[in-house]
Amino acid sequence: MRPSNRKPDQLRNIRITRHYTKHAEGSVLIECGDTKVICTASVVEKVPGFLKGKNQGWMTAEYGMLPRSTDSRMDREAARGKQSGRTQEIQRLIGRSLRAVVDLTKLGERTIHVDCDVIQADGGTRTASITGAFVAVHDAITLLLEKKLIAESPLSDFVGAISVGVYKGVPVLDLDYLEDSDCDTDMNVVMTGSGGFVEVQGTAEGAPFSREEMGAMLDLAQSGIQQLVAAQKTALVI
Amino acid sequence: MRPSNRKPDQLRNIRITRHYTKHAEGSVLIECGDTKVICTASVVEKVPGFLKGKNQGWMTAEYGMLPRSTDSRMDREAARGKQSGRTQEIQRLIGRSLRAVVDLTKLGERTIHVDCDVIQADGGTRTASITGAFVAVHDAITLLLEKKLIAESPLSDFVGAISVGVYKGVPVLDLDYLEDSDCDTDMNVVMTGSGGFVEVQGTAEGAPFSREEMGAMLDLAQSGIQQLVAAQKTALVI
Amino acid sequence: MRPSNRKPDQLRNIRITRHYTKHAEGSVLIECGDTKVICTASVVEKVPGFLKGKNQGWMTAEYGMLPRSTDSRMDREAARGKQSGRTQEIQRLIGRSLRAVVDLTKLGERTIHVDCDVIQADGGTRTASITGAFVAVHDAITLLLEKKLIAESPLSDFVGAISVGVYKGVPVLDLDYLEDSDCDTDMNVVMTGSGGFVEVQGTAEGAPFSREEMGAMLDLAQSGIQQLVAAQKTALVI
Amino acid sequence: MRPSNRKPDQLRNIRITRHYTKHAEGSVLIECGDTKVICTASVVEKVPGFLKGKNQGWMTAEYGMLPRSTDSRMDREAARGKQSGRTQEIQRLIGRSLRAVVDLTKLGERTIHVDCDVIQADGGTRTASITGAFVAVHDAITLLLEKKLIAESPLSDFVGAISVGVYKGVPVLDLDYLEDSDCDTDMNVVMTGSGGFVEVQGTAEGAPFSREEMGAMLDLAQSGIQQLVAAQKTALVI
Amino acid sequence: MRPSNRKPDQLRNIRITRHYTKHAEGSVLIECGDTKVICTASVVEKVPGFLKGKNQGWMTAEYGMLPRSTDSRMDREAARGKQSGRTQEIQRLIGRSLRAVVDLTKLGERTIHVDCDVIQADGGTRTASITGAFVAVHDAITLLLEKKLIAESPLSDFVGAISVGVYKGVPVLDLDYLEDSDCDTDMNVVMTGSGGFVEVQGTAEGAPFSREEMGAMLDLAQSGIQQLVAAQKTALVI
Amino acid sequence: MRPSNRKPDQLRNIRITRHYTKHAEGSVLIECGDTKVICTASVVEKVPGFLKGKNQGWMTAEYGMLPRSTDSRMDREAARGKQSGRTQEIQRLIGRSLRAVVDLTKLGERTIHVDCDVIQADGGTRTASITGAFVAVHDAITLLLEKKLIAESPLSDFVGAISVGVYKGVPVLDLDYLEDSDCDTDMNVVMTGSGGFVEVQGTAEGAPFSREEMGAMLDLAQSGIQQLVAAQKTALVI
Repeated sequence: MRPSNRKPDQLRNIRITRHYTKHAEGSVLIECGDTKVICTASVVEKVPGFLKGKNQGWMTAEYGMLPRSTDSRMDREAARGKQSGRTQEIQRLIGRSLRAVVDLTKLGERTIHVDCDVIQADGGTRTASITGAFVAVHDAITLLLEKKLIAESPLSDFVGAISVGVYKGVPVLDLDYLEDSDCDTDMNVVMTGSGGFVEVQGTAEGAPFSREEMGAMLDLAQSGIQQLVAAQKTALVI
Repeated sequence: MRPSNRKPDQLRNIRITRHYTKHAEGSVLIECGDTKVICTASVVEKVPGFLKGKNQGWMTAEYGMLPRSTDSRMDREAARGKQSGRTQEIQRLIGRSLRAVVDLTKLGERTIHVDCDVIQADGGTRTASITGAFVAVHDAITLLLEKKLIAESPLSDFVGAISVGVYKGVPVLDLDYLEDSDCDTDMNVVMTGSGGFVEVQGTAEGAPFSREEMGAMLDLAQSGIQQLVAAQKTALVI
Repeated sequence: MRPSNRKPDQLRNIRITRHYTKHAEGSVLIECGDTKVICTASVVEKVPGFLKGKNQGWMTAEYGMLPRSTDSRMDREAARGKQSGRTQEIQRLIGRSLRAVVDLTKLGERTIHVDCDVIQADGGTRTASITGAFVAVHDAITLLLEKKLIAESPLSDFVGAISVGVYKGVPVLDLDYLEDSDCDTDMNVVMTGSGGFVEVQGTAEGAPFSREEMGAMLDLAQSGIQQLVAAQKTALVI
Repeated sequence: MRPSNRKPDQLRNIRITRHYTKHAEGSVLIECGDTKVICTASVVEKVPGFLKGKNQGWMTAEYGMLPRSTDSRMDREAARGKQSGRTQEIQRLIGRSLRAVVDLTKLGERTIHVDCDVIQADGGTRTASITGAFVAVHDAITLLLEKKLIAESPLSDFVGAISVGVYKGVPVLDLDYLEDSDCDTDMNVVMTGSGGFVEVQGTAEGAPFSREEMGAMLDLAQSGIQQLVAAQKTALVI
Repeated sequence: MRPSNRKPDQLRNIRITRHYTKHAEGSVLIECGDTKVICTASVVEKVPGFLKGKNQGWMTAEYGMLPRSTDSRMDREAARGKQSGRTQEIQRLIGRSLRAVVDLTKLGERTIHVDCDVIQADGGTRTASITGAFVAVHDAITLLLEKKLIAESPLSDFVGAISVGVYKGVPVLDLDYLEDSDCDTDMNVVMTGSGGFVEVQGTAEGAPFSREEMGAMLDLAQSGIQQLVAAQKTALVI
Repeated sequence: MRPSNRKPDQLRNIRITRHYTKHAEGSVLIECGDTKVICTASVVEKVPGFLKGKNQGWMTAEYGMLPRSTDSRMDREAARGKQSGRTQEIQRLIGRSLRAVVDLTKLGERTIHVDCDVIQADGGTRTASITGAFVAVHDAITLLLEKKLIAESPLSDFVGAISVGVYKGVPVLDLDYLEDSDCDTDMNVVMTGSGGFVEVQGTAEGAPFSREEMGAMLDLAQSGIQQLVAAQKTALVI
């Protein structure tokens, strides 16, 4: 029995609010149960040094947690003077996942900076960030198209992400914090709208996991991400 | 004429939402017009080294802005590896302002960490932070009283803050971003509920200001802060 | 009774020594009682990136204290690897105060770097820094005029600074360290030679202060800064 | 055809040299083709703060590359003043992988520090680090047993790691640098000697990958890691 | 001919001013020609961690230059966030040189922090720092003896330092900046009052130097340091 | 009697292995007894900012120790976020020593980056680094000549380095770790192949040293460096 009484293959409630803050080209609040992340996409009319003159754009992501987004207060990374290894790992993952569905040559010499800031955490912040950030990027790109700054959308597909795991011996979908801190295996899966795998990151927190468990987790992820992509589509047509 | 069509002595709309996030002992979203700040108060059961064994508590504040809370994206301070001088100045101001109405000897050997994170900026983020943080601290202290961890409230008064300035030659209350970036004088005032001054920080951005202008600005601040304290009281009784 | 036996409206002895070190375009030792600060103005023939090609100059200030300028030794900021919030706050204040009387468009594409280094501290180091730095900047500008690098002085006025406070219930001028560490209110005031306010930064260290006290402190500051500007003028004609 | 002419399921030559340097409790040079990594295990008789008094040990890993271990010289991380996100990601992976086969409660209140330093890189440095580090840790633990500092081995299994990928449309085992920089999918797999999965980290560098490709890659990884564990066993009995 | 018209074996004028600032236990301004350094010795009643409980004291030195102590303004190390390699090299040299004549076991569990801050530089700042710092340390130790905090002086000898070099082919004593920046060899020598060598650091800036030149330089250094020790003694009896 | 049973004027066994790693233009493993250092020379086709357009090249060196190259594990400098003063001192010494025999104007607008990484330490790592790095630089320059990127060798001489000291009252050559940590004087000497001094850095660790001892140490160094240069020549002709 899951602490939340959800069924093994049941997602938490998803809410995607577009235009959440007023300055960013794309701004989304994504809520997955009690996990809440503000995802913004900012268009900046220049590219990093290593891409200058290469006739293409760039997309990069940063991630942060408000100090009291978690159960006990964490140190503020800006005050400590550096980002933790975990933070860097997550923001690299978000950036790679989004770039997998963006053709940077169609973006022109500009950068989309994605910022994912967790205001309340209850497990699954990195996957919620990816799912929410995609919508923010979509809005930013729509704006570039409307302003005729680009002729064609650089987006080749949707992208969403979810965690799966083995909790008390049972493969489950979308772990919340209570499950996440007590599971044997935790796996984050990123997939495109058309069902290709972009990232699979599985870790045995307790006992190693088997090929069978892996298969079951990938099945759950696949079905969960289809629902998330559907939610993205619904949000984008409102 | 003010860009927002407000009268010189008119505050922006204030909204104070308590219990905004679920983990913190006090959690407030304060909205002053389009300026939105999440203020949390976290109780930690220890004091900094310099206060160990001194039989008193501590209260300190940190401040941050989400990278795209502003019109153009700012660098993330955690990624740059240090907080700007402006950030440090602001968080020192917030901490001093709140400590002015807290009797630390009544707090016991614990620390209240205040975090003010701006999710949308339109001028006046530091004063909104103080006004909102007071409510979050009040909630955290109420919790300590309810849990009988302290016998008596350490709060001696309310505290609120507002900016005033000279805009196009006219003293005005509660500058928004358009006014702030085009004014001659910008002054932040922090006052207690009973009308004492805690901080006055005035800066001539353009021409120096006169004693008369200073007097007019202090009058405006006084009336504005009375309204803010009234809003705090209303929020706390709901 | 003040610890120094001064009257409430009495400044400490001021001594301004020009050409204190030999390399800088302007170099001043200012002594306010036992507070001693070396203020240099260095002319550098370039501007920061954000001003390139804008046909104007820049002026900026840095502040430091020798580790044993104070009663007990402080950590060396260069060894700790960062400047404290207090240091940054002070150097931002010095820079803003000096820029208030300099027309940067008349300076040409060059920067005046002001360095204020406290070699002995007894209260009032930031205000002494401003008063001394103005003289160093004046000397640097005179040199630029003499070398015909600029046609017209960018200086529009004099600028000086002093602290005032409420000590044992009495408003007093020019707090020394003993007063500063035991006062209810501490206020730093920066004014031009013609009597306009540039900065007012008042903090209630103990009890909040009233409008009446504020008025009394501003009166004291006004008279004190007039004397300081007179001392600057005397130093500059020798 | 692979650039190295290897068959899709063919590992590079493995060489494991124990006692490579003289100071460390465990010291191994592992060579996987042209990739060469020095792995040391250092026993330190204390635990980090968060484990003090908890009657258990700790194991942690650090990773580095000599600046010219790669084709073009990289900046030295010690000189730049921080470790890259990639470095932190890798050292976190190494630490987790080794801890998966170590019972920290049997280690006593001591820490095993693993250092993996790449002296020559040709792809697969993180997986070679894990495979080599296990042998170094084994040697360090044998020493603790010989010195009777621990009564029972904390090791529950062997652990090895390998990369697999999809190169020119074909799933292949053990990518070298030429393949790694030109593949569609790159996946690092960590498994125990008894065949359980510890980590699976797959990334689509180009096109997303399918469930079928994932299955093929996991098959390759499984067979490769069995060979690596055999090589570890051979090295340990010499 | 030397730029200063000094003879090859002629020191610059030395001036040692004790009690230069009021807070430090020892405070000296040393002037060697136009090189001016404030040297303070601060007694702190604790020792660094690695000496706790070892029944001995510690002495350490830090060195800095005011940004405009030099001909063109240098970056402030506190603002850059780190001390240069040169600074660290110099402060390590000063510390070692002073410790050579101090018996730390006679100092008790306390630390003498030496701070050498260059307010005007004209070559030879590190050697002037050592010579001046010795006097400051002597004053601090005298105070400890007077207060009966130690029973016996930890000082075993005097110590002084000077630079020598080969300038335009001629070995010379006490290089000023013009010579230093144009010499073939630059050597810093630290000696005790009784004539033993504590440090010899010679560097060929241009052509390598010979054993004969080295002998000539050491002769000059020996005679120069005798004069410096005499000046220290004179200063200490005034 | 020396711990190693060597005679006072006896070097440890030297082994110089060229082409040690495959990527660098010059790559040498130097072994001096149990001290082992990888020295690489990397040619980069640009110069630092301060040399741009000056029609000359640059050569610089960095130094590091693997964390467990020493008897007890040292912190990794990349993880601590800064290089120690000792590291910086050593890498500045290596760079100066090598530049003494290189005519940078003959190098063209390129930089040779030297990296000296200690994989096993037993005293004398800085001098072994210099001796080994010279061979790596020689190989890199030979490559530049072969590729006709430069017309003439910028090397004017060989350069080698050795430590000497006073151990138990006897001047000895080439101190190992046991001697180094227990000697009265430790001196590092750098000389050219033709016998000129490039650097002499002597430190009295215990009692000050005399002119006579200095002479004896320099004699030992001279004979030792002749043997090292002979070993360099032998290695280069193989």
